[in-house]
Amino acid sequence: MDNEVIARIVDTVVKQLNTPNTGDDITLDAAKRLIEKVKAKAREMGVRAVVAVAGKSAHPVAIECMDGSYIASFDIALNKSFTSAALKMPTSALKTLAQPGAPLYGIQFTNNGRIVIFGGGVPLRNKDGEIIGGLGVSGGTEEQDTALAEYGEAVFQNCI
Amino acid sequence: MDNEVIARIVDTVVKQLNTPNTGDDITLDAAKRLIEKVKAKAREMGVRAVVAVAGKSAHPVAIECMDGSYIASFDIALNKSFTSAALKMPTSALKTLAQPGAPLYGIQFTNNGRIVIFGGGVPLRNKDGEIIGGLGVSGGTEEQDTALAEYGEAVFQNCI
Amino acid sequence: MDNEVIARIVDTVVKQLNTPNTGDDITLDAAKRLIEKVKAKAREMGVRAVVAVAGKSAHPVAIECMDGSYIASFDIALNKSFTSAALKMPTSALKTLAQPGAPLYGIQFTNNGRIVIFGGGVPLRNKDGEIIGGLGVSGGTEEQDTALAEYGEAVFQNCI
Amino acid sequence: MDNEVIARIVDTVVKQLNTPNTGDDITLDAAKRLIEKVKAKAREMGVRAVVAVAGKSAHPVAIECMDGSYIASFDIALNKSFTSAALKMPTSALKTLAQPGAPLYGIQFTNNGRIVIFGGGVPLRNKDGEIIGGLGVSGGTEEQDTALAEYGEAVFQNCI
Repeated sequence: MDNEVIARIVDTVVKQLNTPNTGDDITLDAAKRLIEKVKAKAREMGVRAVVAVAGKSAHPVAIECMDGSYIASFDIALNKSFTSAALKMPTSALKTLAQPGAPLYGIQFTNNGRIVIFGGGVPLRNKDGEIIGGLGVSGGTEEQDTALAEYGEAVFQNCI
Repeated sequence: MDNEVIARIVDTVVKQLNTPNTGDDITLDAAKRLIEKVKAKAREMGVRAVVAVAGKSAHPVAIECMDGSYIASFDIALNKSFTSAALKMPTSALKTLAQPGAPLYGIQFTNNGRIVIFGGGVPLRNKDGEIIGGLGVSGGTEEQDTALAEYGEAVFQNCI
Repeated sequence: MDNEVIARIVDTVVKQLNTPNTGDDITLDAAKRLIEKVKAKAREMGVRAVVAVAGKSAHPVAIECMDGSYIASFDIALNKSFTSAALKMPTSALKTLAQPGAPLYGIQFTNNGRIVIFGGGVPLRNKDGEIIGGLGVSGGTEEQDTALAEYGEAVFQNCI
Repeated sequence: MDNEVIARIVDTVVKQLNTPNTGDDITLDAAKRLIEKVKAKAREMGVRAVVAVAGKSAHPVAIECMDGSYIASFDIALNKSFTSAALKMPTSALKTLAQPGAPLYGIQFTNNGRIVIFGGGVPLRNKDGEIIGGLGVSGGTEEQDTALAEYGEAVFQNCI
């Protein structure tokens, strides 16, 4: 195999490697595209939501508070995004598990009040299905927040 | 008065009601326009910043973490925006006031660790000069954060 | 008493002093041997666990986070090891006691959020049956964490 | 060179790329190898240290408390590892910056008490010089903790 051929192969590989790999974590741009979509849906539903996106490390990437949203919703949305990234499950799944009498009753007290156990938080997956962050929505009824989070989960891959 | 006249009056009133009143508080759109400008400046300066905007009530409106910004900067930027809205002064002013021996030494311990006493937080004013929020920037040196916050303060009125 | 006799006495005393006394508290080496066994079992079960060992004083001795374990599991495992050493009972026993209506309902709020009331924490006993620490496991279902903690409890005496 | 050969080469390269890349974050095994080296050095110096390693996200990977180490050292070492990963600098650099009168005086209060501003915490770099975590050591004098952390920083690349 001559050097030119090798050089071409190396070039191709290097180019691929340099393609920004946004699949391992959530970039600010991806987070903002997702927040935009969730806010549009919230507007449709008449909900004034706070929308928070956490990255793979469960640390926040971006948060937006729609005008007129509840003051308390900031912490709730932030913590929902933390919870779903840190425990890799929707907060609505914790809902069942954390009721009195259920297996994880008490998990709501274990992480300095950052674990949310009602709907509105979902993990976010890259195109390989790997969890790379979490989305938290707060501002409507629990049903509305859950619906908005699930909507966000579904459209996230178009935001990457 | 005929129906046409009534319709014209109603139209005018409704139009005025729908004109976003951005003067009393910071809307999400204004916050995002400001964040965009501060990030552009940060990029120019080679700083990866977290930029936080708080409204009149000192509660957050929007926060964005530039890719690769410090993990610790989220809390710092958020708290800078809180401090400058809640105390209506730049955090760099507190810097002097909160030194050992100075009049407000100890204020850094009074609000559950939310008072920041070094540069990077500024109050935001509407066109009448009234303080309607705060901006917090964290990610560079204190000098850079202060410069970015002051830049944001200066351009804010173009964002309303 | 001649010098030789003195030397022999000194030797004997020194040797005894150097014999690691592992019975009164948990040494780091014992904690790590236990963690190794619990991780091996977790691997068998397909669980990525955080494993924490607390000593007699309920303070931590060692903690290891298996690659890919939940971010939230660090606090949970640490707090489970604290709870079982500090209250000298498995966290699964607290589960029953801390339900609404049960005798200790509310204990989950008494120690700054450090009391865990679901399975995965067990006290650790020396060969005389005296409690000398606690083990906390987090990463699987509550059933898996409980099984892993009980496994650790059972093998602990081979780790001393 | 026909397409089939190219495809085989690309396949091989891609496979290699998919080999778990441990250089992006700190694995538990790498953390433990580092802790072992730091403890050996501490033993040489007569220090009973707590040694903590945080990953890229500033969350803990592993912590070990040498027998007889200070009870307070657990939080200190943990927070040193957090600080140096979250701010990408040694805690000894913050020492100067956070003194009364210095640019970052007050940063010790901004992150819920997790920022340590004296020596003993260092960022950890992969072979490309990128910061992928932090090391925190507590147990000796500040000079000793700093020396131990710097020792750990220097030997870390042999631990990856």
